[in-house]
Amino acid sequence: MPGPKSLFVPGPTNVPEAVRKAIDVPMEDHRAPDIPDFILPLFADLKKIFRTETGQVFVFPASGTGGWEAAITNTLNPGDKVLAARFGQFSHLWIDLCQRIGLEVEVVECDWGTGVPVEEFGKRLAADTDHAIKAVLATQNETATGVQSDIAGLRRAMDAANHPAMLYVDGVSSIGSVDFRMDDWGVDLAVSGSQKGFMLPAGLAILGASQKALKAAESAQMRRCYFDFADMIKTNATGYFPYTPPMSLLRGLRASIDRMLEEGLDNIFARHHFLAEGVRRAVDAWGLKLCATQSKWHSDTVSAIVVPEGFDANDVIARAYHRYGLSLGAGLSVVAGKVFRIGHLGDLNELMVLSAIAGAEMAMRDVGIPIEAGSGVAAAEEYYRQNGAEMAMAAE
Amino acid sequence: MPGPKSLFVPGPTNVPEAVRKAIDVPMEDHRAPDIPDFILPLFADLKKIFRTETGQVFVFPASGTGGWEAAITNTLNPGDKVLAARFGQFSHLWIDLCQRIGLEVEVVECDWGTGVPVEEFGKRLAADTDHAIKAVLATQNETATGVQSDIAGLRRAMDAANHPAMLYVDGVSSIGSVDFRMDDWGVDLAVSGSQKGFMLPAGLAILGASQKALKAAESAQMRRCYFDFADMIKTNATGYFPYTPPMSLLRGLRASIDRMLEEGLDNIFARHHFLAEGVRRAVDAWGLKLCATQSKWHSDTVSAIVVPEGFDANDVIARAYHRYGLSLGAGLSVVAGKVFRIGHLGDLNELMVLSAIAGAEMAMRDVGIPIEAGSGVAAAEEYYRQNGAEMAMAAE
Amino acid sequence: MPGPKSLFVPGPTNVPEAVRKAIDVPMEDHRAPDIPDFILPLFADLKKIFRTETGQVFVFPASGTGGWEAAITNTLNPGDKVLAARFGQFSHLWIDLCQRIGLEVEVVECDWGTGVPVEEFGKRLAADTDHAIKAVLATQNETATGVQSDIAGLRRAMDAANHPAMLYVDGVSSIGSVDFRMDDWGVDLAVSGSQKGFMLPAGLAILGASQKALKAAESAQMRRCYFDFADMIKTNATGYFPYTPPMSLLRGLRASIDRMLEEGLDNIFARHHFLAEGVRRAVDAWGLKLCATQSKWHSDTVSAIVVPEGFDANDVIARAYHRYGLSLGAGLSVVAGKVFRIGHLGDLNELMVLSAIAGAEMAMRDVGIPIEAGSGVAAAEEYYRQNGAEMAMAAE
Amino acid sequence: MPGPKSLFVPGPTNVPEAVRKAIDVPMEDHRAPDIPDFILPLFADLKKIFRTETGQVFVFPASGTGGWEAAITNTLNPGDKVLAARFGQFSHLWIDLCQRIGLEVEVVECDWGTGVPVEEFGKRLAADTDHAIKAVLATQNETATGVQSDIAGLRRAMDAANHPAMLYVDGVSSIGSVDFRMDDWGVDLAVSGSQKGFMLPAGLAILGASQKALKAAESAQMRRCYFDFADMIKTNATGYFPYTPPMSLLRGLRASIDRMLEEGLDNIFARHHFLAEGVRRAVDAWGLKLCATQSKWHSDTVSAIVVPEGFDANDVIARAYHRYGLSLGAGLSVVAGKVFRIGHLGDLNELMVLSAIAGAEMAMRDVGIPIEAGSGVAAAEEYYRQNGAEMAMAAE
Repeated sequence: MPGPKSLFVPGPTNVPEAVRKAIDVPMEDHRAPDIPDFILPLFADLKKIFRTETGQVFVFPASGTGGWEAAITNTLNPGDKVLAARFGQFSHLWIDLCQRIGLEVEVVECDWGTGVPVEEFGKRLAADTDHAIKAVLATQNETATGVQSDIAGLRRAMDAANHPAMLYVDGVSSIGSVDFRMDDWGVDLAVSGSQKGFMLPAGLAILGASQKALKAAESAQMRRCYFDFADMIKTNATGYFPYTPPMSLLRGLRASIDRMLEEGLDNIFARHHFLAEGVRRAVDAWGLKLCATQSKWHSDTVSAIVVPEGFDANDVIARAYHRYGLSLGAGLSVVAGKVFRIGHLGDLNELMVLSAIAGAEMAMRDVGIPIEAGSGVAAAEEYYRQNGAEMAMAAE
Repeated sequence: MPGPKSLFVPGPTNVPEAVRKAIDVPMEDHRAPDIPDFILPLFADLKKIFRTETGQVFVFPASGTGGWEAAITNTLNPGDKVLAARFGQFSHLWIDLCQRIGLEVEVVECDWGTGVPVEEFGKRLAADTDHAIKAVLATQNETATGVQSDIAGLRRAMDAANHPAMLYVDGVSSIGSVDFRMDDWGVDLAVSGSQKGFMLPAGLAILGASQKALKAAESAQMRRCYFDFADMIKTNATGYFPYTPPMSLLRGLRASIDRMLEEGLDNIFARHHFLAEGVRRAVDAWGLKLCATQSKWHSDTVSAIVVPEGFDANDVIARAYHRYGLSLGAGLSVVAGKVFRIGHLGDLNELMVLSAIAGAEMAMRDVGIPIEAGSGVAAAEEYYRQNGAEMAMAAE
Repeated sequence: MPGPKSLFVPGPTNVPEAVRKAIDVPMEDHRAPDIPDFILPLFADLKKIFRTETGQVFVFPASGTGGWEAAITNTLNPGDKVLAARFGQFSHLWIDLCQRIGLEVEVVECDWGTGVPVEEFGKRLAADTDHAIKAVLATQNETATGVQSDIAGLRRAMDAANHPAMLYVDGVSSIGSVDFRMDDWGVDLAVSGSQKGFMLPAGLAILGASQKALKAAESAQMRRCYFDFADMIKTNATGYFPYTPPMSLLRGLRASIDRMLEEGLDNIFARHHFLAEGVRRAVDAWGLKLCATQSKWHSDTVSAIVVPEGFDANDVIARAYHRYGLSLGAGLSVVAGKVFRIGHLGDLNELMVLSAIAGAEMAMRDVGIPIEAGSGVAAAEEYYRQNGAEMAMAAE
Repeated sequence: MPGPKSLFVPGPTNVPEAVRKAIDVPMEDHRAPDIPDFILPLFADLKKIFRTETGQVFVFPASGTGGWEAAITNTLNPGDKVLAARFGQFSHLWIDLCQRIGLEVEVVECDWGTGVPVEEFGKRLAADTDHAIKAVLATQNETATGVQSDIAGLRRAMDAANHPAMLYVDGVSSIGSVDFRMDDWGVDLAVSGSQKGFMLPAGLAILGASQKALKAAESAQMRRCYFDFADMIKTNATGYFPYTPPMSLLRGLRASIDRMLEEGLDNIFARHHFLAEGVRRAVDAWGLKLCATQSKWHSDTVSAIVVPEGFDANDVIARAYHRYGLSLGAGLSVVAGKVFRIGHLGDLNELMVLSAIAGAEMAMRDVGIPIEAGSGVAAAEEYYRQNGAEMAMAAE
């Protein structure tokens, strides 16, 4: 059926018109004399999104995976030990990358549906008296299960353990959408990508590094060239890049940062919580459960919804896609077939989310899942009606 | 709040991505030697949309109002009598234009919420034995009240009266969206605009003229130049225009016609009926009434919904716009404050319509109208689920 | 061959990227509550382009021809006498329109290549002691021959004759490109279009009317509706239009006006003169003549170049188009085959003009016209080099 | 001054309208069920551009530098010896990358202005009887000096030496613009990027790998994850990517490949040679020299032009940029200040190249370089006129 498709995967997210237009520019010479007038303020403003004043921000032409690789190869040494937890596909893939790149990963296996085990991490760090653990890895938002972790709490646990390990945060599906405070939380390496909260096409890995991380980078011995911080630091300081940067995405990044700063980070976070809560009310009204096992794990950027026993979530997803033009996220790995996901991040508002809820409930009913027609929409509508006043005001 | 606005006025309608891209082209010389290769097939295909083989199609850089003026000034003479009915703002404006341009209009006043009074017209034509009436004017879709009229029936009535008057149809908000058959129904002049079923920005008046109308044009004495058929006939035949045409809109028209022919006119009509019926089910579920007083008057392109006594429809509209980013159509003139309108034409699908229904029900509840949350959405969802199979299939 | 086509007809002109992007927006409700916030300042700024403070500006969805018709039908009466000169295809078409619309035109026939015969007009006005002449028509820039006329001088002549006729100026290919001063010159009706100095696609007729013209409009008896000033005055005052306006072009108009005001009208005029002068130096270097018979007639927006006896200008044009992707303007009517035209207006700079000169000289040599390769480019280059300093500075 | 900037750096190149539009699409789910229908033919057609039937093509979200890193880390082992020549900034940077990544590079230092020393390479390979050299590195087009090397000749020399080393070709500024034959020439690894002959924004590293290279990849021990061939091979085979691909660039790549195949690779190569030859005629006419010391080294994608003693090429570049809006390439490293470069690759035609020549000659004269005004343009024009017939024909 005609009309645009409805994109409700947890990234890539819808690119706002103004950002699309900012991207779609004639090519330009990335070595032109006035490029620094563009690049230097861009990096300065990117730091605001990471909420860091003391750190440095990097932009690599790559996906988030490249960002992970950059973070690690610049700051750690072959054989270094890192502490990580596996509770979803993306925390799993990060561990996998570390291992392939040559790190020793101390893995804490957790239930999928839970997040970073702060207490357990604290214990392990306290026990690591010779400080063999060089870095603690935390996935702030596990996109596969819709689980958000407590990074501030993790920092407190690290501090309580008095452990000098660096803190690495996968913020790919959280930064720019939910609260993230690089300086306040003592994050040493934060990794994000362009296609989520930044509301851009994929293609940029965006990293924040603390001074401690940059210090570590000076002596880190892992082989690297493309992702080398030192080359970036040197050329970025002059307003250029060591190799041809994707100028059109950088022009888009300018527009998306402008928009984010105009809306205000706190307003963005409030909006994401507000929209997400509507989805959760719908799930409640359907009588279904989220994959996230407790409300403290609820992600404000993506909800993974568990289909009842006897149903295949992939049928819901296929039906939504083929019949209603609605892209939902699939369950991955351990939760494949058990959950479908509604991404609710980026350039979104109530009517868009309601259309996704409507589409999901039609698709579920189509495959026989016994939920009441309109029940999810009704619950979300009422939540939006009763709690939206501040939202609307903040958006002024 | 961020995210795109939701446009549910009955025109302009959403322009599909492919059509937007077709419009957004570098300027070109409208007198270039290869322009006829573009223009001639465009006109040929436009005739398919009007379902005429014997008639001729005209495209003027103008709004639909300009199309009306072109239709009249080319084919009638000062003081000529025409028969028309007033049952909404647009049928009213057409009458007004005729009078200002110098015609004598025999007006049949009808209730707003009804359509062309076919029987009454038949009677008047039968009584007009000296054939003073030169033209019968019919608004196929009265956009102000959401009323669709029976043009085929009108033709039968005219034939029954054996009256030679020409039949003029205002198809601005119907052609390309609901069934229209210029040749089969013996329509002599059909007027449309680019910003409705053609899914383009406003800026083109698109007309169809029968051979009878063209014959009349040869001797019509109204002063005209810009809207002159003869200039167009002469230059269009060579693949050009008498003055600078809006090439970018014509490039867009090519893309929109391609899309319409690809979907198939009958499929388009079926889709519009299907989507409209969902809206009507929602209205029923809310316990409200349409302005269209009987189901035979139901428009498949726009629904005018009557708010209960004691409420002001403009409050609903203002709330929807300011709080939910949803543009609804206002009641005009006689029905101002009494109805709000949901346009459901053009590049639309179920999820989009459901979002509009959701927005409307939130806005209504916000202003205190006692309808049940989610009730309209639920009714529409169920209708779409149970009746959409053929739609989906047709769209393949 | 690949690469964009080079457009050097005297309109439509190249649309700047920023303006293209401003046009290419999602559709919007032209009756939304915040539309006046957009429309009212737009009209206010349009007045700056016409350099009028006391007059009123109109925007009709139409071509420039529609603008002519609007100017006349709103302010004159059937049978009124107007004074006009014919010296090119567009001055001819204007006369033709007047006659078809029902005016009596006193035509002064002039050589094609000359402009408004100010002295002769002065004589005729002085002789018209009973003030039968209601309006004087002047084509500021005759696009067909590349002739610019002296409107300020015409006003002086009218004043000297102490004649109360209104002054109508066809500024389609001059306003926004060369000096035009509605108030200072006492212009009563000025007609322009979107596709020339406004750097937009065709589709808008843009008019300025003096208070005297508006007064005349109140009693003018020509039949009109679509182009009626009164409807526009009434609805524009509230920030709306009497019928669906082409919002996307209006959004583009906002962007083009912003750009024009940013560059500064006087800088725009200086740039057009500067670029045009380069073309004229090239023509000199080729040993060819312009159609404009004296330098006082030289148009700064288009040059009509006379090919030597024995050659057909259409061969040059065809060669340029098919072999070099260069669109040149053809000679029209009396000068068909005798001239080709280079439009040099709108969003242009030196390198673009040089490429057109290069293309023209290749095409001319290809068809055997004995000019020296590179001679035109060399002459223009030297002119641009030696006279461009102020240009560059003004553009800062 | 207004008007678009003129981009004549040797990449990024102008993106054709149709490709820009293909890139500028709404985001989509890269895991949607119909994505393979898009991805699989894309890879199949990419192979045609590399002229390989037996090899495999990879697309990484990265710059060309990332492509180099991918080529090496997937196929070589730490400490492996490779043979390379340094004769420009990009061959230098490749050597630098190899060294940093952990290879031993046998460097042949050559004059900047020459290319791959095929004979010398042949000797060294013949002397390497124990086959310590694992790979031979060749920069097909040294972008810094405008030097094109003879890859076919290199392959013959390798065969003559009967050496089993793999052949790695940097084709960043050659593939898709000048003749490149992966299978015929026995290239094992070919590296390109999106922003040159592919006429896309930067952001994609595009590689071709032979079966021999893929075999080597199976046991290569360099640490890698982001650039791992194995992950790509596995997921690409199913029509997907191991991580979020930049779908919008891939959609653009589809459009650019379509265009390339439509024009025909051989026609593209002929066009690049034709346009480049015009530039070279201009340089001759100016009495200047190319950095490429012999005609056999002439690059068809970029010309590095040596300014006379006593002048600073950077002054020419600065003047061209600030005064004429023309982006020329600067001399890098050893040739900084000595050369300026005109990139002539991608979506280009004669008039565009002539405008760059005109701009360069104005800028040179502005800074006092004694060349004759118009001389370069005249020479190029004549070359284009006399040799363009076949071009035009081929483009039909």
